[in-house]
Amino acid sequence: MASSSYSNSPCAACKFLRRKCMPDCIFAQYFPPEEPQKFANVHKIFGASNVSKLLNEVQPHQREDAVNSLAYEAEARIKDPVYGCVGAISVLQRQVIRLQKELDATNADLIRYTCNEIPNNTEDGRRIGEGGEGSSSSLNQSLSGFYYPSSPWNNDPCGDAYQRGSNNNM
Amino acid sequence: MASSSYSNSPCAACKFLRRKCMPDCIFAQYFPPEEPQKFANVHKIFGASNVSKLLNEVQPHQREDAVNSLAYEAEARIKDPVYGCVGAISVLQRQVIRLQKELDATNADLIRYTCNEIPNNTEDGRRIGEGGEGSSSSLNQSLSGFYYPSSPWNNDPCGDAYQRGSNNNM
Repeated sequence: MASSSYSNSPCAACKFLRRKCMPDCIFAQYFPPEEPQKFANVHKIFGASNVSKLLNEVQPHQREDAVNSLAYEAEARIKDPVYGCVGAISVLQRQVIRLQKELDATNADLIRYTCNEIPNNTEDGRRIGEGGEGSSSSLNQSLSGFYYPSSPWNNDPCGDAYQRGSNNNM
Repeated sequence: MASSSYSNSPCAACKFLRRKCMPDCIFAQYFPPEEPQKFANVHKIFGASNVSKLLNEVQPHQREDAVNSLAYEAEARIKDPVYGCVGAISVLQRQVIRLQKELDATNADLIRYTCNEIPNNTEDGRRIGEGGEGSSSSLNQSLSGFYYPSSPWNNDPCGDAYQRGSNNNM
């Protein structure tokens, strides 16, 4: 549940913006005074005006999730000004592709085993349990369940640009 | 490479902001006139001033990646005002956990097979190749390579709140 800040002290947003916190303050419920950094982060990255506009655009029951996702993006952008939370998406994408390939290859080994067709070393030289190459036919199906814009990296859907950039950045 | 917009026409940012595009325009190299929506999106979500500040904070060779990641976040937020690209992170996190468990279980089956310890149906009832429960000991190691803030969803590291929210949102 969202924190309630209808107390004597102004919400973190009104305190940050040095204004009186009115009972109908759109920020108060989601930016309690005990979490000042949460508003400071979203204000730095998105701006108070944009956050207010966005909260007014979504349904009241969705505002807490909207604020939490904005706070998450803002914190990630402050920690990594170049990639923000898109860096996490790139790494997770690459991890999903790698795991799917390993799973496909391991399942293929297991099926061959049930037919007693292979020795302890697989045909492509992998040792049992190491995983390896395989089709990722189920990957696109499993990624199709949410909105996903085209990759931010030119010709680099797996985020190698992020890895290179991070190396420069870290 | 970043597009060069040192031409007769102003960059997409200066055109949007109705101002003269000077040779030293910080936006020109990354917001070419032929991509007006790219700047319109980041302006709507982050604000031109915040984008300009961020570009001045990062190294010149990192600015193109920074602009691309901002444009990616902005597009995702416009398409999904409640979760933005954090929704993609939640889905990818859940997918990584599921795939790691399936891979661990399939590797365990394969190792048991090499010892001829199990029939075609595994001890926990899964049919060969279906995957199932297993430890995810390698998950934390593989997720440790990039900055990753705590989950935006209270007690919901796998993004179930996102799934519920999406159902309400769609």
